[in-house]
Amino acid sequence: MNDAEISAAATLEPVADVAHRAGIPADALIPYGHYMAKVDTRRLPEPPATPGRVVLVTGISPTPAGEGKSTVTVGLTDGLNLLSQAEDAPVDWAGRTAIAALREPSLGPVFGMKGGATGGGYAQVVPMENINLHFTGDFHAITAAHNLLCALVDNHLHRGNALGLDPRTISIKRALDTNDRALRETIIGLGGRSEGVPRENGFEITVATETMAVFCLATDLEDLKDRLSRMIIGRTRDQRPVTVGDLGPNGAQGAMAVLLKDALRPNLVQTLGGSAAFVHGGPFANIAHGANSITATNTARRLSDVVVTEAGFGADLGGQKFMDITSVAGGFPPAASVIVATVRALKLNGGMALQELDRNTGDAEQQHLEALEAGVANLARHIENMAAYGVPVVVAINRFPQDTEAELDWLTAWCARRGVPAAVAEVWARGGAGALDVARRLLEVLPSEKAGSGWHSLWTENMTVADRIEAVVTQIYGGSAVEYAPAAAQQLVQLAEEGWDHLPVCMAKTQYSFTDDPAVLGAPSDFTVLVRELLLRPGAGFVVALTGAVMTMPGLPKEPAADFMDVDADGNVTGLF
Amino acid sequence: MNDAEISAAATLEPVADVAHRAGIPADALIPYGHYMAKVDTRRLPEPPATPGRVVLVTGISPTPAGEGKSTVTVGLTDGLNLLSQAEDAPVDWAGRTAIAALREPSLGPVFGMKGGATGGGYAQVVPMENINLHFTGDFHAITAAHNLLCALVDNHLHRGNALGLDPRTISIKRALDTNDRALRETIIGLGGRSEGVPRENGFEITVATETMAVFCLATDLEDLKDRLSRMIIGRTRDQRPVTVGDLGPNGAQGAMAVLLKDALRPNLVQTLGGSAAFVHGGPFANIAHGANSITATNTARRLSDVVVTEAGFGADLGGQKFMDITSVAGGFPPAASVIVATVRALKLNGGMALQELDRNTGDAEQQHLEALEAGVANLARHIENMAAYGVPVVVAINRFPQDTEAELDWLTAWCARRGVPAAVAEVWARGGAGALDVARRLLEVLPSEKAGSGWHSLWTENMTVADRIEAVVTQIYGGSAVEYAPAAAQQLVQLAEEGWDHLPVCMAKTQYSFTDDPAVLGAPSDFTVLVRELLLRPGAGFVVALTGAVMTMPGLPKEPAADFMDVDADGNVTGLF
Repeated sequence: MNDAEISAAATLEPVADVAHRAGIPADALIPYGHYMAKVDTRRLPEPPATPGRVVLVTGISPTPAGEGKSTVTVGLTDGLNLLSQAEDAPVDWAGRTAIAALREPSLGPVFGMKGGATGGGYAQVVPMENINLHFTGDFHAITAAHNLLCALVDNHLHRGNALGLDPRTISIKRALDTNDRALRETIIGLGGRSEGVPRENGFEITVATETMAVFCLATDLEDLKDRLSRMIIGRTRDQRPVTVGDLGPNGAQGAMAVLLKDALRPNLVQTLGGSAAFVHGGPFANIAHGANSITATNTARRLSDVVVTEAGFGADLGGQKFMDITSVAGGFPPAASVIVATVRALKLNGGMALQELDRNTGDAEQQHLEALEAGVANLARHIENMAAYGVPVVVAINRFPQDTEAELDWLTAWCARRGVPAAVAEVWARGGAGALDVARRLLEVLPSEKAGSGWHSLWTENMTVADRIEAVVTQIYGGSAVEYAPAAAQQLVQLAEEGWDHLPVCMAKTQYSFTDDPAVLGAPSDFTVLVRELLLRPGAGFVVALTGAVMTMPGLPKEPAADFMDVDADGNVTGLF
Repeated sequence: MNDAEISAAATLEPVADVAHRAGIPADALIPYGHYMAKVDTRRLPEPPATPGRVVLVTGISPTPAGEGKSTVTVGLTDGLNLLSQAEDAPVDWAGRTAIAALREPSLGPVFGMKGGATGGGYAQVVPMENINLHFTGDFHAITAAHNLLCALVDNHLHRGNALGLDPRTISIKRALDTNDRALRETIIGLGGRSEGVPRENGFEITVATETMAVFCLATDLEDLKDRLSRMIIGRTRDQRPVTVGDLGPNGAQGAMAVLLKDALRPNLVQTLGGSAAFVHGGPFANIAHGANSITATNTARRLSDVVVTEAGFGADLGGQKFMDITSVAGGFPPAASVIVATVRALKLNGGMALQELDRNTGDAEQQHLEALEAGVANLARHIENMAAYGVPVVVAINRFPQDTEAELDWLTAWCARRGVPAAVAEVWARGGAGALDVARRLLEVLPSEKAGSGWHSLWTENMTVADRIEAVVTQIYGGSAVEYAPAAAQQLVQLAEEGWDHLPVCMAKTQYSFTDDPAVLGAPSDFTVLVRELLLRPGAGFVVALTGAVMTMPGLPKEPAADFMDVDADGNVTGLF
């Protein structure tokens, strides 16, 4: 069975029951169908004295096929909840609960190439089909709010441009939650006097917008409006920034927030193992911070002992950003980190070609221990990096059908030699039962609520933007130095002059390499990273450092998934994976 | 109190109770929050032997302020339901029920100028705020499906254009549910080889797309896919049409329908008077047919004795289209028509200036019986037109605060002299209680289920497109002849050659006049209508005849409503009317 079939065959519990078990009062639940709901956080019980501990699931440098971080996040949550009910439950864990917190899928990849993003096999959040399609409408609300802003900006130009915006400097693009290459670069406002002011303006996919980042970093409606109002639209001819708060008599943040107010409530669903899961928000992990909403994680912390959450791409991207940006904004220092590794991805990092890996069927004679041994350096560096944040690290070896026992044994033994807790996870095939070993390893090292987290950021408060970039490049990536393209060097000076030099930095780098070159795999050292451009994002509260071309509007492949999707007269969908 | 305050002050019944009273089984209800739901029509009881009769609410030629068709539709539904419970209920009406069927509001006007579209005062569908904002996400789904199609089209061009589409002929535009003037005319696909194929392509507001028209005219999922597959994308260099069904290996209608399948289920809400109401779909009334979805009307007919529905603009536009297009596609010949007239709009049609009307405070000395008398010719023609369809007509005089008794008396007496049942409606101020007189007049003339509708179309089956246009212009508008611009004349020939000459015609004309000139008010005669262009819309199943410039993407005004909207920390919205 594929993911869609497994999901369709499952018997789901009504979301009202899931909520009840999670301690959510009935009057705090806003149903969307029978199996999804938003939670009105104002109607939750008083927060507990010690909110749930946050466990970050991250990964090694990904291969094009993905390593299953979402799948492990779901399976581990189910494993933790199974274990808490088991007779041999660890003493501090008996009767306790875990909740998963994940990002929402974007419609772009669902109809493009990547397919859905709700985990896989028996480790899925469900109802898979609804979550992968419109879900509770959050991304549509974000798209609408963002495009309302853009329409207000062009209306401002059309009505005389009282703010003196230089149209060539307008940096916000319009948004669609669609993979649409042809909208990357456009000219708008054509047609004469009554049709607006002609200018260049492209489209981004919704998940790449600053509005999405703001939505996910906001702690509540007031913080949302404050952040929206700080977003920079563009600049005047004398380079003064013009913000969302400057538009019209009251700023545009009020109208945007009207469109976002319901969306900001976290979405409750369930895993196939019956755990409660919040699936909410979904910013890119390159140009943005790549984690689910802070409102979702904080809601889950009020309701459970452990919140298992994940961040996009590898530990050098989503992991670093979770440690240095998301957890700081949310006020939840992570208690531990789980790094998902696969034999397959390590062998790719060790020099094997993707085509060769794809031919692998799992026969013993096809094992490639040399490639695995060469590639494990990638895992080693990710482990060191996460440990450097002061949190315990557990390795979850996510088993693929073609992995051999010898390969899995070698990798487990390697972890043991390094003193790193590790276990094989078989979550795709077995759900939570396949994650019990990982869950045990995690609970063995997880600090108690009383002990608290040993987390500390890579950065200190008085570091400049350049200091922060240097810290990431040298301490996380393993590089030796940072170079700045002329434009970026100039932007550094401008940031300092304008008083933004204290902001955190959001690195936009290829996910495939520790370097800025996607072809350099493994664990390279002695390289420099070139920062090409810096983007000021005061709404999100960070400066984006671009180290290469970042695609903010994906295209459709030669054979889009959409080509093979259909729905019958009874509403049964085919082709959605 | 304004509309938002009246709505906020109301105590709503849970939608599950509204559904129960309407005879909808619990397992057919898909809740969206506590006061909105979609209905799974496959789980409804068997259809009754005689489904509910359809009463069309339409209006005289509107003024820029609107005449309150939605308000009267809601109030009349409440009035009918009040009357059925009254001791002096008409004998055939005791214990019977009415359901309202209305269009969904578009976000564009909500944040632009017009405000919400859920009725007004004590004749509203509620929850007003949700319905006016994202509601159940239908328009977002339509936007997403339509833009997926557009992305697939441009991807087809990018991947080699195997279908041989001439990019200059591509007629589908992208869509946003936002008033955004600057997107009317754009150039897309800029940036070089990897960014698609440069071409001109604008955006329409979602409600103006053929996808919206198709959504509202489809009777079920299969019909939806059939209609989508027939939509014309553009043409080859040798002028052959390329359709949605031609794209990719299976056509794009399957993927589009995957995005539309939940949206196609009608939305159940309630009126302030406690009646059940379906609010679903919302196509333009110029470039499309201007009525709520056929699935909603047919669902309401299964559950009630009378369905009160409305169509956009005046009886010459929405009314004619409901009689000749919507009711035919839906299989529900209307049983009666209610024409909403206001003293204010008739005086405008009688020559008074809008500014003068706006100064009117309702003092007796400010009444203008001459203007009213001059303008009533407009009402007279709309009455004749609706009666010509073989259905009884009732006039609902929608009272405004500044109307004088003398004006209302004069208009009532005028109707009596013409033998037209009429009554004053005070629905804004009094809800259903203010519509009891109109409800009684309606029930006096409404044919019984047994008698059936006397409806017949203006058109006969073997009429050509030109015949149909002539019939509308001469018999409905009161014009003497139709002229064709050279392009339109050529298109007539092409339509005949390609075998489309039998299709119904959807007239796109100014709503302010029976002519194609918005400045010519009242009831002009001896004029010609110029058809400038014909648009073939095989998905919707009609040919659009453009008699003037039709705005398919509105702009924002100098002071958009968005400028004055806000939401506080508790989620309370202000500035939404």
